[in-house]
Amino acid sequence: MTNPTDPTDDRTDSRLSETAADDFTVTPYAVEGDIDYEKLTERFGADPLTDEQIARFPDHPLVRRRTFYAARDVDRYLEAAESGAPHSIVTGRGPSGPMHLGHVLPLYLAKRFQRETGATVYIPLSDDEKFLAKDQSFADIGERTRDNLRDVLAVGFDPDRTRIVVDTADADVIYPIAVRLAKHLTPATVEGVYGEQETVGLQFYPAVQATHLLLPQLVAGRQPTLVPIAVDQDPHVRVCRDVAAKEALPVDKPGALLGRFLPSLEGPGKMSSSGDAPSIELTDDPDTVAETIRTHAYTGGQPTLEQHRERGGDPSVDVPFQYLRFFFEPDDDELERLAADYRAGDLLSGELKAIAIDRITDFLADHQRRRSELGSLADELEPYELSANERARALESAGVPGL
Amino acid sequence: MTNPTDPTDDRTDSRLSETAADDFTVTPYAVEGDIDYEKLTERFGADPLTDEQIARFPDHPLVRRRTFYAARDVDRYLEAAESGAPHSIVTGRGPSGPMHLGHVLPLYLAKRFQRETGATVYIPLSDDEKFLAKDQSFADIGERTRDNLRDVLAVGFDPDRTRIVVDTADADVIYPIAVRLAKHLTPATVEGVYGEQETVGLQFYPAVQATHLLLPQLVAGRQPTLVPIAVDQDPHVRVCRDVAAKEALPVDKPGALLGRFLPSLEGPGKMSSSGDAPSIELTDDPDTVAETIRTHAYTGGQPTLEQHRERGGDPSVDVPFQYLRFFFEPDDDELERLAADYRAGDLLSGELKAIAIDRITDFLADHQRRRSELGSLADELEPYELSANERARALESAGVPGL
Repeated sequence: MTNPTDPTDDRTDSRLSETAADDFTVTPYAVEGDIDYEKLTERFGADPLTDEQIARFPDHPLVRRRTFYAARDVDRYLEAAESGAPHSIVTGRGPSGPMHLGHVLPLYLAKRFQRETGATVYIPLSDDEKFLAKDQSFADIGERTRDNLRDVLAVGFDPDRTRIVVDTADADVIYPIAVRLAKHLTPATVEGVYGEQETVGLQFYPAVQATHLLLPQLVAGRQPTLVPIAVDQDPHVRVCRDVAAKEALPVDKPGALLGRFLPSLEGPGKMSSSGDAPSIELTDDPDTVAETIRTHAYTGGQPTLEQHRERGGDPSVDVPFQYLRFFFEPDDDELERLAADYRAGDLLSGELKAIAIDRITDFLADHQRRRSELGSLADELEPYELSANERARALESAGVPGL
Repeated sequence: MTNPTDPTDDRTDSRLSETAADDFTVTPYAVEGDIDYEKLTERFGADPLTDEQIARFPDHPLVRRRTFYAARDVDRYLEAAESGAPHSIVTGRGPSGPMHLGHVLPLYLAKRFQRETGATVYIPLSDDEKFLAKDQSFADIGERTRDNLRDVLAVGFDPDRTRIVVDTADADVIYPIAVRLAKHLTPATVEGVYGEQETVGLQFYPAVQATHLLLPQLVAGRQPTLVPIAVDQDPHVRVCRDVAAKEALPVDKPGALLGRFLPSLEGPGKMSSSGDAPSIELTDDPDTVAETIRTHAYTGGQPTLEQHRERGGDPSVDVPFQYLRFFFEPDDDELERLAADYRAGDLLSGELKAIAIDRITDFLADHQRRRSELGSLADELEPYELSANERARALESAGVPGL
């Protein structure tokens, strides 16, 4: 899985643009009720998240403030989470570069859900797809993978309820199941959803991705699975749902929690497709974070101090405010106060930036502390790896029992 | 790899027909110098096997009598075999049914080569491809695979110089390398060689097949590799050669020893594409073998005894004679005597059948004895499996070093 709120994933972004170009452009800066997002879910056949559903999810700003604003089959997940029945989340990472702030937010969301309701969390790293899609060697991708794994581990998941898989390193279980799922996955379906692919590797990959989404159920039995994912990536989930239904495997179709895009630092129209836009990396020190936000963050402020004091700023397009709103200011009253002050012109863009810098720096300090406390990757990863029994169970459930 | 002299492999046969339909039909019954086979190699850009090359190969009827009649890059293989340098053979099996007589002949050829020059033999079983291509479950394919493995083991390869891989069971090494090779394998190339594929699994499979052919070199270093294969399957080798050259891996392009088709029992025009033609299975008892040949074998005899005595038979289309010629009568003088007697009308079709039945029954008795002496599959297979070091070396050589 590519990452739900990753604004630098060029493959999915470009696909989205193609899909959406006809009648609207997706802007990742709308605060709420934006017609674009509604149209997008309507087109995909997903449902808006209801107030009642939001209230039933563990409390988190990404849900409460409708960054995740639409859904597919979440009621079964919520029922299981409430009743203590098994339920799982799949949220992955495509390891083609250092992890940015945006990449890690869904992981922290999953961690919150895990803490509150005991969700099993599966985190697939698609090094195969990144190798195939990017102009990088497997050595490069491997280095990124090891680096990204340290960030995933630093989040602090419960190892008893979390499994991390790396497509090439876990090919013993991933590939046979993907072959099982590929039996009826046609080139036409893949091309319809993902566009024409340049290599047969990328043509096959959707079967690997479907494997990711079904893995919790193949390992531990039929259960509601939730995939928090950027709305443009809902087609991935739909391919998996179709495959799951067609193959008569002992699984339910995975559900999806569909999100808006995390804004890129440079603001509207700057959503990068090259991956080299300025961004905050998880390993950035406080000075770098401050410098990056001060230099690059797009604001909703007025050109001059006088104009700002007079007309006020627009928090709905102000990237530092949006970062606070998405994740870094958990207190709704405090967030509303900041928005009101900004709109009134009492709070300046630089001041808003300073607040965002503080919050993000605090968040990263905690993350980086846990990261620095990690031992060797092999040792740290071990408790999160699928056990031999779990591998055998997954293959058995997928009808690929082996020799 | 599908099997070189397998007359029941419908996928490759049907592709061959498409390729060859324009200007000639391939007949698997020509004894020698047949224009069809020459055209076929010319079209593929392979070279006829020279007398000098045949003399340099370990002596075997399949080569000496030009069942394998054309080649690609065999001189490097022969030099290594003569000088004692490392050299390897890849000959595989698609486990979609019980193994027939035709399936096992290339394995016995490889065993002869191994005994005489110390060739390393790799035997990949493509259970993934068979699952994808056939209307069978993985449970069915798994049962076939276990059964076929017992036949492969019964051949009696040297475990120190032989490796058996099963695509799903060895996916830890097969899949990452296939992804590496798939990076530049385009859908257009695959479609050009294999035709349009129904699923993305089959589109990806040529990358797996290329992995099979490069595996000996990835495990043990650059060395001449020979792939004995039916001529219609030469495109598989060419795809691998192209990929090997393009990817700058530490391997040489594999060479090929290209063969004629083993005739099916029912004779000309009966080359089965359904796989349910009468055939001799490796586990058939002597009575079944005799009954099958007596009932189904196409002969070159005349309709009546009188006519046969008068006009004589045609050994070039007589399937029992062809079986003797391909493999089961190693003595050239004896074979020529049989042909002369048959042409003269002194030897009857029934008598020729009886000779073929004797030889095949003797061969199968030895094979079945070794098969019956095998212990549990896991125990017997273990010495033929890639070691952990060999797996790591293969991945390392392919530039997929892992975590």
